[in-house]
Amino acid sequence: MKRVAIAGVGLIGGSFALALRRAGFDGEIRGVSSASTIAVAMEHRIIDGAMELEEASRWADVLFLAQPIRRILAMLPVIGASIGPSTLVTDAGSTKRAICEEAARVMPPEQFLGGHPMAGKESRGAASADPSLFRGRTWVITRESGHPLVDWLRRIGANLLVLDPETHDRTVAYTSHLPQLTSTALACTVDGADLRAGGPGLIDMTRLALSSYEMWEDILATNADAIDGALREEIARLESLRSGLRSGLREEFEKGAGMRKRLVRPVELG
Amino acid sequence: MKRVAIAGVGLIGGSFALALRRAGFDGEIRGVSSASTIAVAMEHRIIDGAMELEEASRWADVLFLAQPIRRILAMLPVIGASIGPSTLVTDAGSTKRAICEEAARVMPPEQFLGGHPMAGKESRGAASADPSLFRGRTWVITRESGHPLVDWLRRIGANLLVLDPETHDRTVAYTSHLPQLTSTALACTVDGADLRAGGPGLIDMTRLALSSYEMWEDILATNADAIDGALREEIARLESLRSGLRSGLREEFEKGAGMRKRLVRPVELG
Repeated sequence: MKRVAIAGVGLIGGSFALALRRAGFDGEIRGVSSASTIAVAMEHRIIDGAMELEEASRWADVLFLAQPIRRILAMLPVIGASIGPSTLVTDAGSTKRAICEEAARVMPPEQFLGGHPMAGKESRGAASADPSLFRGRTWVITRESGHPLVDWLRRIGANLLVLDPETHDRTVAYTSHLPQLTSTALACTVDGADLRAGGPGLIDMTRLALSSYEMWEDILATNADAIDGALREEIARLESLRSGLRSGLREEFEKGAGMRKRLVRPVELG
Repeated sequence: MKRVAIAGVGLIGGSFALALRRAGFDGEIRGVSSASTIAVAMEHRIIDGAMELEEASRWADVLFLAQPIRRILAMLPVIGASIGPSTLVTDAGSTKRAICEEAARVMPPEQFLGGHPMAGKESRGAASADPSLFRGRTWVITRESGHPLVDWLRRIGANLLVLDPETHDRTVAYTSHLPQLTSTALACTVDGADLRAGGPGLIDMTRLALSSYEMWEDILATNADAIDGALREEIARLESLRSGLRSGLREEFEKGAGMRKRLVRPVELG
């Protein structure tokens, strides 16, 4: 792996470039983005130069698509039409089924490896790029692969997790999409109350509500069935909390605390 | 205010003592607690000595009840029977209606000032006491008062907010109790999914699920009606997110983000 092209040099794409550099990657890194994004990325020394998508598809050993889902879906046919014989295309889309299906339609299966780095922060854009963004975070790939990229993902500190696209989407409906919608629903419900009586718990629980709808629109559209199921389950759980308000909720509190303890072990302690 | 007694020298009671000291309080601070708690509090130089409840009720200028709600409810009649003519009793209970009603039954109304410091952390006990715990945090009092205690609350950095007991309980059903139950419900719903696919959002959203049921049992029992209403509203909101999964949720995301921006202004920026 000597030539890396990154389509979408925002927070994820830019952090990937910086992380590669810090891990010792000494090949070339080119950005495929709008002129203004390229300017910011060059200014922050994130990329060595720019390139058009078609050229990058032929030139790169690895072409990393770090854009919103619908943009990735729109680019895949263009990439498929110009892809070089040894280019591996990978992506950072938050849902995997729609993207992997489209990739399978337009390029040889061994040339696409779906990916989902489970990292982020509220600030966006190349100016927020951070070489440590993926350290200790899960990076899902959609199949086993011996490509050198996979070694680089390990070297930048990601915890690799292989999940086929369907399993991935069903899983993140619970672990990522449900927390987002729950935060939004909570914020909307509490809106109107006297917020001076809001403490640190409410601040934590509504942080995700700040997320950009631009990103979430595509996620919801490409995983609606699984998300609907997760929402239905959570509503049933909230109804059961309602019925237990007077009889006691010890079991639910213990179950919830147990989940949180199991959660932080694999994620924070790597 | 020269003599302060603190019943329950745990995180809140201990932090109050340390905060008073750091703000320049040079009177005497006595603890009313079990022998083992007193020992920890003495070791950490949080209190000057111990006292029995009846004696403290006569002796103190301010008697601060920093215990679980049911414990406060049980102590109020004992305090009422032995209260001195110039003692002000205040408390840190997370709901206010039940406590203020019981206080009104057993002591002169001008001798009780309901309180609710909206601060905390996951670790408990005097060993976790922190003189900065209340800095920039809301401290609800249930009526206007010219008592010197109120000046000391300002001096330790709390943002005072006057809410009558009913308004307080209705408000915190949304700003505190609903976030707690939402976190517990989310954690229970996600339990069973592959937690390796959990990112920082899920970690944030389930932090409250670690809360101790011992404390929450009393809160739920003394504010069930208001909490039930808040849960019902949140469930309706989640149902409306379900119906919008395919048609789009821009309005809900914008409403939620707007609430969060308004929330952090008064709470974090003081």
